[in-house]
Amino acid sequence: MPDSTQLTQFPRPSVAVDTAVLCPVPGRGLHVLLTHPGDGVWQLPGSILRPQERLAEAVARCLREKARLVDRAPVQLHVFDQPDRDDRGWVISVAHLDVLSTRDVGFGDASSPETEPDPQDARRRKLAPVHSVRELSAEHQEIVRVAVHRLRSLHERTPDPFGLLPDEFSLRQLRELHEIVSGENLQADTFRRTMLPLLAPTGRALTQGRGRPAQTFTRRSELALRSDGEGDQGRET
Amino acid sequence: MPDSTQLTQFPRPSVAVDTAVLCPVPGRGLHVLLTHPGDGVWQLPGSILRPQERLAEAVARCLREKARLVDRAPVQLHVFDQPDRDDRGWVISVAHLDVLSTRDVGFGDASSPETEPDPQDARRRKLAPVHSVRELSAEHQEIVRVAVHRLRSLHERTPDPFGLLPDEFSLRQLRELHEIVSGENLQADTFRRTMLPLLAPTGRALTQGRGRPAQTFTRRSELALRSDGEGDQGRET
Repeated sequence: MPDSTQLTQFPRPSVAVDTAVLCPVPGRGLHVLLTHPGDGVWQLPGSILRPQERLAEAVARCLREKARLVDRAPVQLHVFDQPDRDDRGWVISVAHLDVLSTRDVGFGDASSPETEPDPQDARRRKLAPVHSVRELSAEHQEIVRVAVHRLRSLHERTPDPFGLLPDEFSLRQLRELHEIVSGENLQADTFRRTMLPLLAPTGRALTQGRGRPAQTFTRRSELALRSDGEGDQGRET
Repeated sequence: MPDSTQLTQFPRPSVAVDTAVLCPVPGRGLHVLLTHPGDGVWQLPGSILRPQERLAEAVARCLREKARLVDRAPVQLHVFDQPDRDDRGWVISVAHLDVLSTRDVGFGDASSPETEPDPQDARRRKLAPVHSVRELSAEHQEIVRVAVHRLRSLHERTPDPFGLLPDEFSLRQLRELHEIVSGENLQADTFRRTMLPLLAPTGRALTQGRGRPAQTFTRRSELALRSDGEGDQGRET
């Protein structure tokens, strides 16, 4: 087994982190947060790992400095290692996934939920529909594609796996969220049948518009975020 | 944005791959494949990434050379980046997960399914129960722990997600597999209710021992392996 002297003699890749922050926007579909470094082009918030920096620290640093998002803990998505993926040399990227509501991103109001309200900040970050990210590099487009695929898989048989809804919600609110994520209309009966065993009725009801009050539920399933026992290797679980 | 000259001036980690090959052994519980390098200690098959090597290539090389397994395509599990995890220096490991039957590993017969039949090979590879891997380094024990957690999550609401059973199987065969993976007895009625919507009846039956023939089913759900659209970044999906 090589000692540390030998190990550093071999060529090594640079390691980067990139994060796809996905955001279901009511009435507008699934969006992804893009950031702009000032010079250059729109991109996913990312960075080369600094010496001795942990991956989660680098991700948090990028979200804080480039996207103005704090206290987030994105989950690892996939490691991208195509040899020609970065023209700066051999770079592998540990892609991460986070999911936020427009409110958590700090964007817009009800009439224009995908718009950055501060014109100064609007030059540095924006939401783009996930099907319209051609301005990203091919590598970042691929990360968005895999992130959307993962998000949709997680929503197929788990109600609101990222906890975007309030603790109590109606089946209709749940279905509307899942429809934004999936990008298509979901058949109400099938959706109800799939989700009901994973929900606990609260016994309370919610008034929605002019319709009759709707029963509310809470989740019986775990949240996808930090549920995998992988968040912190040092943690006892 | 730094050019390639600048990028290689920064300290970079060595990147390793390690694979937890899990194996449900009938009557003996869930096992993990350990390999022995000749000198040193039992470990998960792994290696430092070679210059310009892809992660999947390095994983396949380790499985072939150290574990005598060919044509496998493990899925990425998690990137482990604890700074002090390797005494050779700054090494981050992209851990992978594979799941095989004892037959696919090439081990034992019905009476001793977890035993390597070739005494020469038995010094180089063996199966160990997943709850009894204290001979591994702390880092590899952690990889096993996360791999088992992931495997169990994947089995909770998906029938045989790694396709270990034949194409047609009875509910009892399916439950026996899931019981080995979960490490506990599963309540037959609850299991049936969870799995039936994800199975398609074949209309055929299987004779099991002296009991009456059991209906057989096929999977309606996707396999977990390669189902995430992440296997090959260049591939069109």
